[in-house]
Amino acid sequence: MNSFWSERSRLVREEVIPYQWRMLNDEEPSTAPSHTIENFRIAAGESTGQYQGMVFQDSDLSKWLEAVGFSLRRHPNPELETLADSVIDLMEKAQEPNGYLDTYFIVAKPDEKWTNVRDLHELYCAGHLIEGAVAYYQSTGKTKILDISCRLVDHIMETFGEEDGKIRGYPGHEEIELALVKLYRVTGRKEYLTLSKFFVDERGAEPRFFAKEAEVRGDHSSYNFAYSQSHAPVREQNTAEGHAVRAMYLYSAMADLAAEYQDESLLSACRNLWDNVTKKRMYITGGIGSSQYEESFTVDFDLPNDRAYTETCAAIGLVFWAHRMLQIDTDGIYGDVIDRALYNGILSGMSLDGKKYFYVNPLEVWPSAALNRHDMTTVKPERQKWFGCACCPPNIARLVASIEDYLYSVDADGLYVHTYTDSEVQVDVGGHEVTIVQRTEYPWDGQVDIELSLEGRAEFDLVMRIPSWCRDAQVRVNGEPVDSCIVERGYMRVRSVWSSGDRISLSLPMVTQRIHAHPQVRADAGKVALQRGPMIYCMEEVDNGENLSAISIADDAKVLVERNDSVLGGIPILKVPGRRDVPNAEQLYEATNMSYRSVEVTFVPYFSWCNRTPGEMLVWVRTTS
Amino acid sequence: MNSFWSERSRLVREEVIPYQWRMLNDEEPSTAPSHTIENFRIAAGESTGQYQGMVFQDSDLSKWLEAVGFSLRRHPNPELETLADSVIDLMEKAQEPNGYLDTYFIVAKPDEKWTNVRDLHELYCAGHLIEGAVAYYQSTGKTKILDISCRLVDHIMETFGEEDGKIRGYPGHEEIELALVKLYRVTGRKEYLTLSKFFVDERGAEPRFFAKEAEVRGDHSSYNFAYSQSHAPVREQNTAEGHAVRAMYLYSAMADLAAEYQDESLLSACRNLWDNVTKKRMYITGGIGSSQYEESFTVDFDLPNDRAYTETCAAIGLVFWAHRMLQIDTDGIYGDVIDRALYNGILSGMSLDGKKYFYVNPLEVWPSAALNRHDMTTVKPERQKWFGCACCPPNIARLVASIEDYLYSVDADGLYVHTYTDSEVQVDVGGHEVTIVQRTEYPWDGQVDIELSLEGRAEFDLVMRIPSWCRDAQVRVNGEPVDSCIVERGYMRVRSVWSSGDRISLSLPMVTQRIHAHPQVRADAGKVALQRGPMIYCMEEVDNGENLSAISIADDAKVLVERNDSVLGGIPILKVPGRRDVPNAEQLYEATNMSYRSVEVTFVPYFSWCNRTPGEMLVWVRTTS
Repeated sequence: MNSFWSERSRLVREEVIPYQWRMLNDEEPSTAPSHTIENFRIAAGESTGQYQGMVFQDSDLSKWLEAVGFSLRRHPNPELETLADSVIDLMEKAQEPNGYLDTYFIVAKPDEKWTNVRDLHELYCAGHLIEGAVAYYQSTGKTKILDISCRLVDHIMETFGEEDGKIRGYPGHEEIELALVKLYRVTGRKEYLTLSKFFVDERGAEPRFFAKEAEVRGDHSSYNFAYSQSHAPVREQNTAEGHAVRAMYLYSAMADLAAEYQDESLLSACRNLWDNVTKKRMYITGGIGSSQYEESFTVDFDLPNDRAYTETCAAIGLVFWAHRMLQIDTDGIYGDVIDRALYNGILSGMSLDGKKYFYVNPLEVWPSAALNRHDMTTVKPERQKWFGCACCPPNIARLVASIEDYLYSVDADGLYVHTYTDSEVQVDVGGHEVTIVQRTEYPWDGQVDIELSLEGRAEFDLVMRIPSWCRDAQVRVNGEPVDSCIVERGYMRVRSVWSSGDRISLSLPMVTQRIHAHPQVRADAGKVALQRGPMIYCMEEVDNGENLSAISIADDAKVLVERNDSVLGGIPILKVPGRRDVPNAEQLYEATNMSYRSVEVTFVPYFSWCNRTPGEMLVWVRTTS
Repeated sequence: MNSFWSERSRLVREEVIPYQWRMLNDEEPSTAPSHTIENFRIAAGESTGQYQGMVFQDSDLSKWLEAVGFSLRRHPNPELETLADSVIDLMEKAQEPNGYLDTYFIVAKPDEKWTNVRDLHELYCAGHLIEGAVAYYQSTGKTKILDISCRLVDHIMETFGEEDGKIRGYPGHEEIELALVKLYRVTGRKEYLTLSKFFVDERGAEPRFFAKEAEVRGDHSSYNFAYSQSHAPVREQNTAEGHAVRAMYLYSAMADLAAEYQDESLLSACRNLWDNVTKKRMYITGGIGSSQYEESFTVDFDLPNDRAYTETCAAIGLVFWAHRMLQIDTDGIYGDVIDRALYNGILSGMSLDGKKYFYVNPLEVWPSAALNRHDMTTVKPERQKWFGCACCPPNIARLVASIEDYLYSVDADGLYVHTYTDSEVQVDVGGHEVTIVQRTEYPWDGQVDIELSLEGRAEFDLVMRIPSWCRDAQVRVNGEPVDSCIVERGYMRVRSVWSSGDRISLSLPMVTQRIHAHPQVRADAGKVALQRGPMIYCMEEVDNGENLSAISIADDAKVLVERNDSVLGGIPILKVPGRRDVPNAEQLYEATNMSYRSVEVTFVPYFSWCNRTPGEMLVWVRTTS
């Protein structure tokens, strides 16, 4: 891959993974020690001392290992692999003879294992370990970390289950459910799938496991079951509730299990939840979770822009879920949401140089209020170097490192192209090894030139996603317009007998659109967001001066697209004639008409904001007719 | 007084004062016991048990006594007076031989008196006791409660001061400063004024008293000095900081002292603070304090409507301060702010039947969000019967009961009419006893007919406030237009030799105005508030359906004023043609143009909202050109 994603992928390889390694090893002088690998050393008997860090500190190492696994697929790096192998050796040494592996409990609470899976992330850490193991095994073929995972899961199967003497419970933070499906798929061991199904089926059942578990611990504090989606059996959940990341990981596992078991009731729950999230509880950037409190969903259409919590990890979780829904059902609605999150609310989480991160991604930032109001303490006007709870940076890293998994899929009928990016990938289509080369400047330009290479000839459908923002998609095969193609559920299907050198030209004209939110979204009333291709745009103080709320644009104002190498590396920015309210006097309230002055308003892609002089930012701009 | 204020005054007499009495006595079955009078009984040795309630519980009794004092001025009530006398006897019995009186410390912490005046409201309670005493003495002429207060203040003077062995400190919650000025004015004892000045002058001086006091207590927790306006000497404070009620009580005392001492530096600080509050930190309703956290001011122009804290007591405090500023300087800006707060953000605190209260008065309420978002826990969609911290209801009561103090003032040049209301009041103008009868439906109608009665003839200026919202005030004397009058700093001055039967007709044409906020108020961009006379209007769900944010009105839409006895007792409501956004499809985000339907929008006075079916409310409405 090159261009847009290859640049991000390079950042992950060259900046994020090495930086993370230093973080894990407490070798990064600019931030406080994470103690992550040191905890493993202590658990392995190679060092002494106390456990330090978050209770789920182990998962940072697993996410790093997963990102390394993905990265090594296309970018072999023997030095990095040696580093990973050495840490895998350490993990093996830390693992207990019965397979148990969680350094917090091994080091700090050896007698309290499995007594608080609601709050203490044991099963969550196991899930990330599995995901890291699967990715590393898949790219290197090395089985050691996979074996460590299997031993841990075998131990978990001895501990959890319906049988007498086992804990009939499930994790407070979902994650292992989807990881077990991955482990099943690489090992073929059905019992891993069964365990995943057990965790999902048990969730929310009466009597409530978390209540019983707390009672045993003597913990009588109140608990919001919805926080961990344990307020009702999953098949009865129709609205997205509680902690947004947890919800996304659960729904991802539900989709996986619905597919594996052809479970219609589970699929139906997934679809209901999908409707609720994407039609009522999602920001235009793909951000989800509109409340800082419990990092949670709130109520339908409650999407305040200045207090959006919209954790980067939650948008990543939405992509995981959407990707699984897409595998069940080839419908453009899933790809549209993947694009929405990927190009906007996720990439905003990382600076253009890969060195700083937003945990929280609001759609409106007024630094003066954010820094002074106590109901906005999580809104940071600038990206931070790292976080105490460092879940988001490694989560971005593993997603970006695996971006090619989102490009294509294959079924009995043909080859599906879900996302466009300059790239070269091999896929197996009905026994034919097909190399697909995409040449495109997407997401900045809608022209995509695809060339196929294969041995001999093969008949199959080439099925290309037409994003919902695109109204006039045109396709040519070897220069000839294809007229008979219709777009069905967001995909255009071209059947042909293909052979090497066949060229498919897809044109997705990019016009800048004014997007309205549903009138129930009170925060966006009277406003539009500008979208070009999959990119949502925003205003920044550095271009437009302070007080962005004073700016409005006319409904019919012409939008100019400009590229200037000196501005954000030459990505397309928008220029729109607009007006700025100006006070008639320094009175707070006045009966006279508002005065205006004409201004040229500059919009930049949302994900790229705060990469120059920090200041105000605003996505939704007022319109005047 | 009759009509508008007489109805509120009647509510206070017939509903609030009796209800409060039952609350103070734990005789109100609908709410939890307050324990207020029981604490006095225990302190007096008439009962046994533990102290219960807030640490400042005593002040509720004092505020009740103050309201009773004001009420008895015009509405003698021997039964009520007997009740008050009996509770004064109890207070006397509770007072310690050295004058000390605070039942929390007497009963619960006898060894910790004066060790934490930062947090424990001892001096605050003393202040309210003084204010209650002054009001009760002034209307009844009875001195017992005044004597109790003087004994307490004498004790405080022995305890606080610059001299060695005394505490060189000041209260965490200002209140006693302004009360001491009142006590000085009724007793003539200058030392009370000196003590007030001492408290004000010491505030914020280095080394910080609250730091030293905490150190002595062994309290090493952090403290935000701005919370109690102790971050800098008061003369160096230019922006309103911290707890809004505390700030208002402090600024009121500063204005009093500036007047008493002709202290220019103190007056200059008052003026700077006035500018900051009224030009940058005040809602259009007169509400102040835009953050729930520490019930505080935040930063300039940070006035979110849905999370406005705007405690009723803070707006009341603003009226106290404005009234004092007005006494120093006859400028319409003060009366305008008094009206703004009085008719809007204060009266909204009490239901039309006087039985329920808002502590917090936001300008936008969406119950669904308010009830579910944890950053809006203080926003109540309905008024409450009473509060655990019941500061606001008695504060409204004492203000309404003393409303006539805001009508007139007199100086060497003449008689000033500051506020219009149907009323009959006697004032002494240069030795002439003048009875002024106002006949008016103000604030609903701008026609005010004034008739004077006096012995013989007297030459003086009749100086009438012309509210800033009024552009074409007309005045006639005995039917003849007065042409030569000009409005200067918000007042129109008519000099004449007056005699009984002179009639002054003042016409203040009430048109409905569209008010814009300063463009820096991001929350109000693109919106207007409707104001008619001094009244700010709002939309309610009961009239306009749910989702008020979907409604907009045209810049030039004609506003009709309607009165309908079946709607809120026939007060003027507004009807404006507008439009409502309607979704094109059930999509969250759409590139198609927004659709609209025409609607007739109903606006009701803000103070009267939530007196019918509860639901959404919105002051600032979007406009379209």
